[in-house]
Formats: sequence, C-alpha cells, structure tokens
Amino acid sequence: MPENNMDKPKIVTCTAPVNIAVIKYWGKRNEELILPINSSLSVTLHQDQLKTTTTVATSRSFQEDRIWLNGKEEDITHPRLQSCLREIRRLARKRRNDGDPSLDSTGLSHKVHICSVNNFPTAAGLASSAAGFACLVYTLARVFGVEGELSGIARQGSGSACRSMYGGFVQWIMGEKEDGKDSLAQQVEPQTHWPELRILVVVASAERKPVGSTSGMQTSVQTSCLLKHRAQSVVPERMVEMIDAVRRKDFPAFAELTMKDSNQFHATCLDTYPPIFYLSSVSHQVISLVHRYNKHYGETRVAYTFDAGPNAVIFTLEQHVPEFVQAVQHFFPPDTNGEDFIKGLPVSHAALSEELKRGIGLEPMAKGINYIISTKAGPGPCVVEDPTQHLLLSDGLPKKTM
Amino acid sequence: MPENNMDKPKIVTCTAPVNIAVIKYWGKRNEELILPINSSLSVTLHQDQLKTTTTVATSRSFQEDRIWLNGKEEDITHPRLQSCLREIRRLARKRRNDGDPSLDSTGLSHKVHICSVNNFPTAAGLASSAAGFACLVYTLARVFGVEGELSGIARQGSGSACRSMYGGFVQWIMGEKEDGKDSLAQQVEPQTHWPELRILVVVASAERKPVGSTSGMQTSVQTSCLLKHRAQSVVPERMVEMIDAVRRKDFPAFAELTMKDSNQFHATCLDTYPPIFYLSSVSHQVISLVHRYNKHYGETRVAYTFDAGPNAVIFTLEQHVPEFVQAVQHFFPPDTNGEDFIKGLPVSHAALSEELKRGIGLEPMAKGINYIISTKAGPGPCVVEDPTQHLLLSDGLPKKTM
Repeated sequence: MPENNMDKPKIVTCTAPVNIAVIKYWGKRNEELILPINSSLSVTLHQDQLKTTTTVATSRSFQEDRIWLNGKEEDITHPRLQSCLREIRRLARKRRNDGDPSLDSTGLSHKVHICSVNNFPTAAGLASSAAGFACLVYTLARVFGVEGELSGIARQGSGSACRSMYGGFVQWIMGEKEDGKDSLAQQVEPQTHWPELRILVVVASAERKPVGSTSGMQTSVQTSCLLKHRAQSVVPERMVEMIDAVRRKDFPAFAELTMKDSNQFHATCLDTYPPIFYLSSVSHQVISLVHRYNKHYGETRVAYTFDAGPNAVIFTLEQHVPEFVQAVQHFFPPDTNGEDFIKGLPVSHAALSEELKRGIGLEPMAKGINYIISTKAGPGPCVVEDPTQHLLLSDGLPKKTM
Repeated sequence: MPENNMDKPKIVTCTAPVNIAVIKYWGKRNEELILPINSSLSVTLHQDQLKTTTTVATSRSFQEDRIWLNGKEEDITHPRLQSCLREIRRLARKRRNDGDPSLDSTGLSHKVHICSVNNFPTAAGLASSAAGFACLVYTLARVFGVEGELSGIARQGSGSACRSMYGGFVQWIMGEKEDGKDSLAQQVEPQTHWPELRILVVVASAERKPVGSTSGMQTSVQTSCLLKHRAQSVVPERMVEMIDAVRRKDFPAFAELTMKDSNQFHATCLDTYPPIFYLSSVSHQVISLVHRYNKHYGETRVAYTFDAGPNAVIFTLEQHVPEFVQAVQHFFPPDTNGEDFIKGLPVSHAALSEELKRGIGLEPMAKGINYIISTKAGPGPCVVEDPTQHLLLSDGLPKKTM
C-alpha cells in the first residue's frame, strides 16, 4: 500500500433508525454495562422519516478521537462513547489476533473522527440516543472491519440502541449473565412482515423539560416497588404475548398490550419517589381520544404509546390513518391552517362524520400538538455507498454546510 | 304512653366528619358487602370546617321512608341506603328480641324521614358519601336505640364511611371473613393525640368530571395487575409503618408514606385499562411545589395526598402553615386579590423569601386553585342536642330554609 494512501483517511457513512418500544424498558440492574431489569420489544421506524446519519473517518494523521453531533463538537471522553469505541477496537483486535486475513488491521491504532446528524429535530422528543449509538457502533464496526453481533456494544452506549441494530420488530432479551454477554437484541420479524402497520409520531407542545430517562429510571429502581413487580412478574408474560401478537399480525392484541404497557410504565414513574410525570394534559387528551375513537367503532383500531416525554406514538393500520389523523387535527386544532401539520408519508384527506365527533365528545385543545410524522416499520442500519453523503471531508473535519 | 305522643315524631340530629385516607382504599373483593382488597388508614377532619348534618324522624304517621339530600328529595330505594336501613333495623330487632328493657321498640315498625346537608360544597370534591353514610348510620342508630359497633353498617353504605365513625386516626381493617363481619373501622389514636398536625384542603379548579370511584375501582380490580400486587404485598407493610409513624408523631415518616401511598394509588389508576386520570396539571404542580418546598428546607415539612379527583389534601405542622399557604398563593395566583382564598382555621400572614421562591422555581399557574380550607384532625360523629338544629319539622318535612 503506497504511503500517500496511509494518510488519506478511511471514511465510512451509515444510517440507523429510531425504535419505539411497545414493551417498555425502564430500569437497569447494572448501570455500567447497561443491563436491564426486564426484556423489551420495539418497532423500528422507517429511516425515510427518521434516522441518524454517522460518518466515521480514521487516519494515521489524526491526533485524537473527536466527535461532532448535529454540527457541534462534543466531548469524546463521555463514558458511554468510550465504552463503544473500546469495545469495537477490542473486537477488531480479537479478529486480527485470530488471524482473519480479510481484516485491514492498519487502522486499528489510528484515531477516529466521528460526525453524526439526525434528520429529525431533537424537539421531536424521540430518543435520539438509540439511533445515535446504533449508528455509531454500526459505522465504527464497518470502519474497523468488525462483523457479527453488535447489539451488545450498542447497548453499552444507550440501552435501547441495541434494538435499533435491527429492522422490523425487535426484542431485547434481558439476559442472565453478570457480564451481560447474553443481553442482546434479536429480530422477531422483519419490516416486511406487517406492511399495513402505520406509525404516527404525534409531537406535543412541551410544557417543560422532563426528567432525563437515565436518572429517572435510577430513581424508579430505587424507590418503586411496583416497578420491581412489573419487571419480575408482568413483563415476562407480556413479552410472550407481544411476540405472539406480532407474529399473528393481530392488531387488537398488539394494540391493547402496547397501550397497557405504556400505561404501566408511566404508572411506575408515578410510583417513583418523588414521582415522575412524563404525560402532560395533551398526552391525557390523546389517550382519551384513542380510547373514545376505538369505543366508537367497537374495536381497537388505534393504539398509543408514550416514552419519557409527552409525545405520543400512534400505531394503526393503513386504512384508518386518514380518518384518525383528521380526528387528531379536529381535537387539537393546529396553530397554522394545517400546513406542515403532517410530515412524512402522505396522508390522504378524510372527512370526519358528525357522529364520530359527537361520539368522541372531547373539548378541542388548541395548539396542543405541533405536528405529526407519518411513518411505518423500517430496516435496520445501512451503509451509505454514495461518498458525496459523507459528513466528514477528506481532511477529517465536518462539511461546512452543517 | 298517651296516644298523641305516638303520632309526634321522634327526631334525632347528628353530625359526622369527612375523613382523608393516607393509606388508600381502592378496590373491593365483595361489591355488595363492600369488602376491600386491602386495609386503609385515615385522618378524620374537624367538623368545625367539614361535616354532614343528618336529621332522622320516625313516626307512626309516616307513610313511607323518605330522604332529602342537600335540599332535594332523593330515591330512598338506592341499594346502599337500603342496606344501612335494613341493617340498623335488624340490629334494633335483635336487641328487642334479646329483651333489652331500655329499648323503645315502638318505633321499629315506623317509617323514617331522613334529611341531610353538608356544610361544604360538593364542588370541593371531598368524598361526601363517607360523611353522609356515617352520619346516616349514626343517626339511625340513635333513633332506634342501637349501640355498639356501627362501622360495619356504615361500610355497607360507602366503604370509606366506616372510617368516619371515629375521630382522630382511624384504620379500616380489611378482615378475612366472607360475610364481612370482621371488616371494621378502629380508632388508632384520638384527635387529641397530635395537636400540631394541620390539614389544608386545596380545591383545584376542575377541568372535567372525573370517573366515579365505584366504577373506577371496579375497572382497576379487573384490569390492573399492579393494584393486585399493591393490595397483597405493599399495603400490609405500609399499614404497620403508618400506624407506627402516627403513634410516634413522626411527621417525616408519616408525610413520606402518605405521599408514596397517594402516588401508588394514582399509579394503579394509570395501570387500569382504559387508564383513569384523577390528577390534573394543577395536581402535578402541587406535587412539584411540595417536593421542592421540602427539598429547599432539606426536610419533609409538607405532604400531599389526592383522592379520586384533582384536589390536594396537604398535611403539615402548625408552624409551617402560614409560609406554605403563602407559597401556594404565590405559585397559584388566585382569581380575586386573595379574599376568601383561605377558609376555615385562621392562617396568619407570612412573607415568602426570594430565596424560597427561587428555590421552588416553578412557573406560577394562575387560577389553578379556587380556595384552601384550613382544618385539623377532629372527633367522630356527635349528637346535636339543640332541637332548633333539626333539619326536619315536627310534620316530618324539611325546613323551608333549606
């Protein structure tokens, strides 16, 4: 290999998806290794609407590891970033020592530059750390020529990041081992399994910044006796039921379990001392809307789930999207005259019958919802082959456009 | 006894208190007998501020049982009213059959007229049924000359009514028997036990009518797995701890357990399917205010508890009342300029330090709270000796002034 090539950085760009848990993860049994107190299950959202893009460059000429997130240089010494870097380098070294001839081992001692952006606003309140760490680990693995199981490394960046390592329907098996080697994500079904399923991210106007999930779940583990019971006695059965509902594409079963599990997660937050509230009055109204909508039709057509914030994620089937979106718009009259209220997959217009409006019978809550992102289940992390998409230039610094 | 005396009604008037549970009752194991799934513990509020007054008249000339509640005639055939009437008459008959010579048995076959009023607005959201049924049972017992244990009868009117049969600190022991004979209230300590304890009923502006507690707890028993766990595994220990905290007058222990139990009750409501929300955004702000107030002082000076509605009941010690009330007024600026904001026991003025305001650091929520009723622990039901206080005239009909 000519020497001038050694100075030219090796650059890889990948994307990774956001995931939304329908059986929630809340509480760690090991803070450092990020081992959860229960298994969880999520749906990977489509990257056409929501994704993180990460470029990693490595070069003999780089003086130190560096990272830029959404255009701003951040501290690379963050322990969770360090965990991921260390684990990927360890795997790469192991492969080299095992004598894998395909491995380009020259880069192993080189420093990395990392640049990462989300195509969705942080204000959307979506757990960007899951997509972020999944993307980081996936990209680093490509750079260092590491293959195989990577979810255990992503998990050490951010627990739920392990589920963003796969597309479709993904479970994070909590595992039993002390070293966490069996606490891994696994695809239950690919994204092609349930093509009719649609997902609406309903972005609520936030009243105040909620308690962060890391410290929130610590306090919950320490103080909520209901959380302990949930983790030990409720979730194991629910995981079996949820996997079954997904496999059978049984929307009512999937939807009801999703809603119950979201509610139980928020119940354990309320049982935390001092209590944690993630649901706002807007969230409460979305919950009422969903239950009344379903009741009106006498069947479960729509489900909600809420993470550590007031935004709802709605699951429904393709055929019900236009009417339900119209119902959301009716009971949460937007600030504007509806432009930009719906982002993502196109939603055709539907009329709301007076009967349905009366049946729901809620008082409209103006400006409660900022916008909706319409999406569906999608694939796991991908390599971006087009070099014009790299976020780092050949000098290893971010493109100016960022 | 001369015959003209036989036609003259026998009239008795009594009063009974409201009680506030600090270990909550939620869920019945027997709907008809009103047997709870866990024991509970409450503080009886003073009747100078909150009470029900009930007059019962009985006369040979009455054609049928009748009842007037807060000035309006109501349906006497309500099953729970009938339970109380039937049980009191059964006890009276038993005493007569046992040959009690002091018992005036002539009235046993007579019909009753019942008239009951509360001295507090229904809008205060206080469980008026507890005071109401306690007062009814206590007054009926006086009329029919029944003495001894009456909480088991009051319980059949409204579960929590059994606790309003005693003053001070009262436990409702859930019991084990199928017939409910051992599901009774018992005084833990009289109201004189803890003279420094103060209670503030914080009446929130209600957004909407909440789900009734009877149907709410039915749904919770049917659907919440956390409620089952709470009843079986959490409350038994908490009852022991709470009785101990009350006996030792350990305010921080009493306060923390009170807040945790309120939160856990609301957590089980959220774990109900569909979920039940009793806490409003005003309730959330009161909760934040209390925790931040306590944190500012580095000790638990104030506690909240919430029943099946958005109103808070605050416990604190006498010395902290003026400042905390001022803090409530500051973070919930009243509609008026503060007149009539505080009802009940006089509260002296206190200044709020800038340091405390900053320490709490909440955004004031205008008009969130309508008023505060300042009170303390009080006695159980009492007989009103003054005949001018009767709510029924000698013709057995309510006074016109009502």
